[in-house]
Amino acid sequence: MTLTEPTFSRAEYAARLDKTRAAMAAAGVDLLIVTDPSNMNWLTGYDGWSFYVHQCVIVTPTGEPLWFGRAMDAEGAKLTAWLSEASLIGYPDHYVQSTERHPMDYLSAQLSDRGFGAARIGVEMDNYWFTAAAFASLVKHLPDAKFSDCTALVNWQRAVKSAAEIGYMRKAARIVEAMHQRIYDKAEIGMRKCDLVAEIYDAGLRGVDGIGGDYPAIVPMLPSGREATAPHLTWDERPLKAGEGTFFEVAGCYRRYHCPLSRTLFLGTPTQAFLDAETAVQEGLEAGLAAARPGNLCEDIAAAFFGVLAKHGIEKDSRTGYPIGLSYPPDWGERTMSLRRGDKTELQPGMTFHFMTGLWLEDMGFELTESILITETGVECLADVPRKLFVKT
Amino acid sequence: MTLTEPTFSRAEYAARLDKTRAAMAAAGVDLLIVTDPSNMNWLTGYDGWSFYVHQCVIVTPTGEPLWFGRAMDAEGAKLTAWLSEASLIGYPDHYVQSTERHPMDYLSAQLSDRGFGAARIGVEMDNYWFTAAAFASLVKHLPDAKFSDCTALVNWQRAVKSAAEIGYMRKAARIVEAMHQRIYDKAEIGMRKCDLVAEIYDAGLRGVDGIGGDYPAIVPMLPSGREATAPHLTWDERPLKAGEGTFFEVAGCYRRYHCPLSRTLFLGTPTQAFLDAETAVQEGLEAGLAAARPGNLCEDIAAAFFGVLAKHGIEKDSRTGYPIGLSYPPDWGERTMSLRRGDKTELQPGMTFHFMTGLWLEDMGFELTESILITETGVECLADVPRKLFVKT
Repeated sequence: MTLTEPTFSRAEYAARLDKTRAAMAAAGVDLLIVTDPSNMNWLTGYDGWSFYVHQCVIVTPTGEPLWFGRAMDAEGAKLTAWLSEASLIGYPDHYVQSTERHPMDYLSAQLSDRGFGAARIGVEMDNYWFTAAAFASLVKHLPDAKFSDCTALVNWQRAVKSAAEIGYMRKAARIVEAMHQRIYDKAEIGMRKCDLVAEIYDAGLRGVDGIGGDYPAIVPMLPSGREATAPHLTWDERPLKAGEGTFFEVAGCYRRYHCPLSRTLFLGTPTQAFLDAETAVQEGLEAGLAAARPGNLCEDIAAAFFGVLAKHGIEKDSRTGYPIGLSYPPDWGERTMSLRRGDKTELQPGMTFHFMTGLWLEDMGFELTESILITETGVECLADVPRKLFVKT
Repeated sequence: MTLTEPTFSRAEYAARLDKTRAAMAAAGVDLLIVTDPSNMNWLTGYDGWSFYVHQCVIVTPTGEPLWFGRAMDAEGAKLTAWLSEASLIGYPDHYVQSTERHPMDYLSAQLSDRGFGAARIGVEMDNYWFTAAAFASLVKHLPDAKFSDCTALVNWQRAVKSAAEIGYMRKAARIVEAMHQRIYDKAEIGMRKCDLVAEIYDAGLRGVDGIGGDYPAIVPMLPSGREATAPHLTWDERPLKAGEGTFFEVAGCYRRYHCPLSRTLFLGTPTQAFLDAETAVQEGLEAGLAAARPGNLCEDIAAAFFGVLAKHGIEKDSRTGYPIGLSYPPDWGERTMSLRRGDKTELQPGMTFHFMTGLWLEDMGFELTESILITETGVECLADVPRKLFVKT
């Protein structure tokens, strides 16, 4: 039924489902309610901006998963997911943003009808799209079911990427290279930030070499000067100023697969603080990359980076990276492992991370980061953007 | 402390807080935990793409509200919110996306320390950003508190817009006019959709007459032909085709205030089905607008529109509009009233809606919508875009 070229082979979707069911068995659940749109897409191919209403994919013990969503969005599921129409459950429109009834009331009845009223059901308790009210509805309407927390169960299955996924991320990397080139080419003193963001989107959407861009899960962040002490400000209409550094945290996105990458641009003659940050991060990145190989742990990358920073008199203990891949707003991270002290997850070939070496200091911010792929023998940086402080005068 | 020009006067923020506290008193709560980023911004001015981690604003019985978020984002709160630094509570980074501890554990301790351990606490049970796990943490760590559902309590206070808010929405309207003009100017047979989306972003961000654009809460949706039977598909790299209709659901955004507006473009000679849809929706829109005046009810607008559609043989019973204003992803609607049968909310001057008259039919989609302001005597369309099916050959 899909009009678009399928994003992945049916065999790949089947393998994903098998992995997920094995993890469900290990977690002791019969049924998994998957509300994360990234997980929904990864399992079924479903793609649409419909996550502002309640929806989910239900992984049943056997057969096709079920798609559950607003009736009008079942049309989008027919067009984008590999599921047969019999597996799509649309709920009536009067359940949408109603104060009297909840879509999960409807789902509960559907699950009971299918014989799952007393099942062991896994739910993503800490996912954006699984609200306290959604859970309360399920608990109330499925009193004989046994619920358990399976937050990130599917996310973990996504940690090691397939060859096809890595192929998409390499295309996203080409796009993010073009985005940073455009920033460097176009940014100048006096330019309004919103105009520079227009350039960033233009480069990200038109893409490069026939590869067209999708929307990244996070909008560009580009705070300047003192504002850049805060990591998550977006933009406004004010002009870029001489004597200020601006970091650009952006991602290329291809078919929902991301390659984030940050660089910092100084307009004018950089202060010593920026030059010092550049040196520390360049050296720290190298140390982190040297620790990024199969068999090492997530924390080893962070420790190597933090060690170099400490030598330069900079203390950082915030998370310095996270897994990346298929994502929807509000986050292009996968919310499983973290590159930080104490994370003992073993690195495996095919894992991909944003090595997020940002520094948010007392009166400035500096970001110079890489998206990385763990290979059989070490690490590869997905994108090729000069690893330095950019300067324009 | 803010570096940016304040978005609203302190008096306006004080009035918002007063309204909210009156509603809290009516709901019987002492303390309100506000997780919706739109509500957080409306109350405090806080702006940043940080809602992918747990955060909230706590409206206390007296004094300034508290801002609660990741420690590194407290810097952003200093720069964007009107709150004093003493009102900002940052949680340590090892609470971020941890499987061992939850940010709401930390908040619970902070609330206990401030004497709110046995308070009557309102929470937004059905908000995207208030997960089942967040609620479970609060219930566990504040065993003496009494929780009640205050979903949309703040959203309802936002229903009638201030003069300043309407001013921003008028600027957003100028932007969306420019976006549709650009679509008409640039769309052509053979153009890749991602390239057309680049044009849409360019128009939306550069804006018009010195008004620069912000990011809309939803990305452009522009399905074509058969795809347009599904309302929420985004775009891909395929070219626009002759003989197909494409609807464009986009919004101008200024300082987080939205003016959504949809139009449909047919490349080639429109089929009779498109011409019929145009006639029906034009006439139905007029009927709906005639019913949009103070004293009438939300359902009156919907009934007038549905009545005309029925005359044309089209049955529609899905929601046909929703309130708009300040928003963050994933939705530019305010999630309070709806323009649909059974919604008895009385229309008041200063209310703003997207009158969403989209038709998603068996093999096509057609959208021709208006964003409207209820005035003292009737209604005003915020944007001025020709109300017709656009055709290019």
